[in-house]
Amino acid sequence: MKAIIQRVTKASVTVGEQQISSIGRGLCVLLGISTEDTQKDVDYMVRKILSLRVFEDDAGRAWSKSVVDRELEVLCVSQFTLQCVLKGNKPDYHKAMPAELAQPFYNAMLERMREAYTPERIKDGQFGAYMQVHIQNDGPVTIQLDSPTASTDPKQLAKQEKAQQRKEKTRPKDHNKGATPAADKAARRPDQDPSASSGAEGDVSSERDP
Amino acid sequence: MKAIIQRVTKASVTVGEQQISSIGRGLCVLLGISTEDTQKDVDYMVRKILSLRVFEDDAGRAWSKSVVDRELEVLCVSQFTLQCVLKGNKPDYHKAMPAELAQPFYNAMLERMREAYTPERIKDGQFGAYMQVHIQNDGPVTIQLDSPTASTDPKQLAKQEKAQQRKEKTRPKDHNKGATPAADKAARRPDQDPSASSGAEGDVSSERDP
Repeated sequence: MKAIIQRVTKASVTVGEQQISSIGRGLCVLLGISTEDTQKDVDYMVRKILSLRVFEDDAGRAWSKSVVDRELEVLCVSQFTLQCVLKGNKPDYHKAMPAELAQPFYNAMLERMREAYTPERIKDGQFGAYMQVHIQNDGPVTIQLDSPTASTDPKQLAKQEKAQQRKEKTRPKDHNKGATPAADKAARRPDQDPSASSGAEGDVSSERDP
Repeated sequence: MKAIIQRVTKASVTVGEQQISSIGRGLCVLLGISTEDTQKDVDYMVRKILSLRVFEDDAGRAWSKSVVDRELEVLCVSQFTLQCVLKGNKPDYHKAMPAELAQPFYNAMLERMREAYTPERIKDGQFGAYMQVHIQNDGPVTIQLDSPTASTDPKQLAKQEKAQQRKEKTRPKDHNKGATPAADKAARRPDQDPSASSGAEGDVSSERDP
């Protein structure tokens, strides 16, 4: 999973002429879910978004406080284009989780974030709609995060692999423990239906509308 | 170098009460320059930003045309926070090119982009200032790009290394050929002054203001 986290003075979403969501000071998060993402990526991303120290403290010291510390708001918008792979200059989206799976996965993630913070302070766009996202980036301050699955750092990958092996040895049956039902279902999908993450859908994926 | 490219209906930059820059339809690009970046990264990034197919064609077919094809505008804003490395939940910026080097490097990159397109269609923020960047993300469509130096893909790195070795064998003296003077200077810096990219500045870098 990839996240683009922008610190904002305010942000909002409009669909057509209608404003469907808005926040004041806080974070605007664009989230790109990949075919590989599991509950582990959700957990990591929720924790990081809510704990990332990009706000100043009362004494004005920068990089001291998180969105939760300052009791600010979060506007999350699903953004499959973050999973693009360039074929020359043309974006290809076969790595993005298909919408019918990404939607329950994304909703479960929002739910998780609301549980971990305060439901009223987590706002949303409209999944799959053509939106205008109005972002007043404050600073600007923009942080790009990759969840463990998205990481291509060889050291990190080796570490993950070892951790996974240990996990499989000791707890073979409950590796999805703690997952909410929708995320759990989506997380298991790649194992249960290998064709779902194949290139079959990739042929037309670059035609996918935002 | 890292770039966050947002397709926009419009975008602008204000410093204090004053609007210093604005564009209509086009791309808002947030650019994070690292201590490792060279002219090669500049060339790659300029080419990709201008050629990326994120606009529809006249028949409404998505992902067909670039910002240049459609004669639209680009608003570039330097964004060192993209080079953050998380220490726990605190961003650390020792990988970001220090401002006194990043500024000429960034200006040379803008110059390059103006040469490659039309000077009037490339707008800028105010380097190092505390800005509000107003972004109306259209779709939303957001693409994250890493230049070759920033890539951690082992295959890609091996490929780069081989290419570099070939280059050094055949053209030992002109590996910065074609670089504009400022970018050239900045590009050579890591070799000439190894201490400049050391962690010396890293101790206070997370205190760096946006």
